[in-house]
Amino acid sequence: MPFEIHPQLLADCHVLGRVGSCHILLNGHAAVPWMIVVPETKTTDYLDLPAAERETVGEICAAVARFIKSHWQLEKTNFAGLGNVVPQLHLHVIGRKPTDPCWPGPIWGFLPAKTPYTEQEVTDIVAGLQTDLPGFQTD
Amino acid sequence: MPFEIHPQLLADCHVLGRVGSCHILLNGHAAVPWMIVVPETKTTDYLDLPAAERETVGEICAAVARFIKSHWQLEKTNFAGLGNVVPQLHLHVIGRKPTDPCWPGPIWGFLPAKTPYTEQEVTDIVAGLQTDLPGFQTD
Repeated sequence: MPFEIHPQLLADCHVLGRVGSCHILLNGHAAVPWMIVVPETKTTDYLDLPAAERETVGEICAAVARFIKSHWQLEKTNFAGLGNVVPQLHLHVIGRKPTDPCWPGPIWGFLPAKTPYTEQEVTDIVAGLQTDLPGFQTD
Repeated sequence: MPFEIHPQLLADCHVLGRVGSCHILLNGHAAVPWMIVVPETKTTDYLDLPAAERETVGEICAAVARFIKSHWQLEKTNFAGLGNVVPQLHLHVIGRKPTDPCWPGPIWGFLPAKTPYTEQEVTDIVAGLQTDLPGFQTD
């Protein structure tokens, strides 16, 4: 049975592509640069992944963090695996800066009303990933 | 100059001991089992750690997650490196269950008034770590 991204993630995010067996999503809230990495696994907690798999996924998340810092010219990312609402493993990589609407708090539960990305912004992010994220390919 | 744990972490947490160069802290909010891993590094973002160091720290966090699941009989942990308030790198490993006061939301910003641990509870947690967390030693 092919892997399917959880419907709640599909509802909340733009699916941009993949690196290996990790899907790369962009949360639709444009107030903060918020990407989500979804590895094709049945493990639900990041810290329960076998070490080699955790390292592969961690390396992809680290590359996504570098991309976010470069594309949005930021110095800071937050990283989290929560999964209390959507049990499917998904890792949050979120660019932060002192002028974003949630700073210095976390973003979950504190974002203002959703401001969506424009089509052009999403196109530019995908183009950036194709240039700057090693191994990235659109689905 | 010796490494010093950030004063805000010292104010919020019990310092329990260490595994290698990672300090193991217990956040004082007893409403959720919330441990904090503080690696001795100047890097502030988890995803900016060199791969080998990220893997070492990740392995210690994974062992802490196993300990939390075992000690509190839980099936789920949340994992995060935020650091917007306290820039010193510290990793949150938090045991979660559907009956905790923040479920299914994240805990940051949503905890009720602080309920502290008893001295006996802290003693029992340290004893558990000494038995069950590989490499754990009190400072």
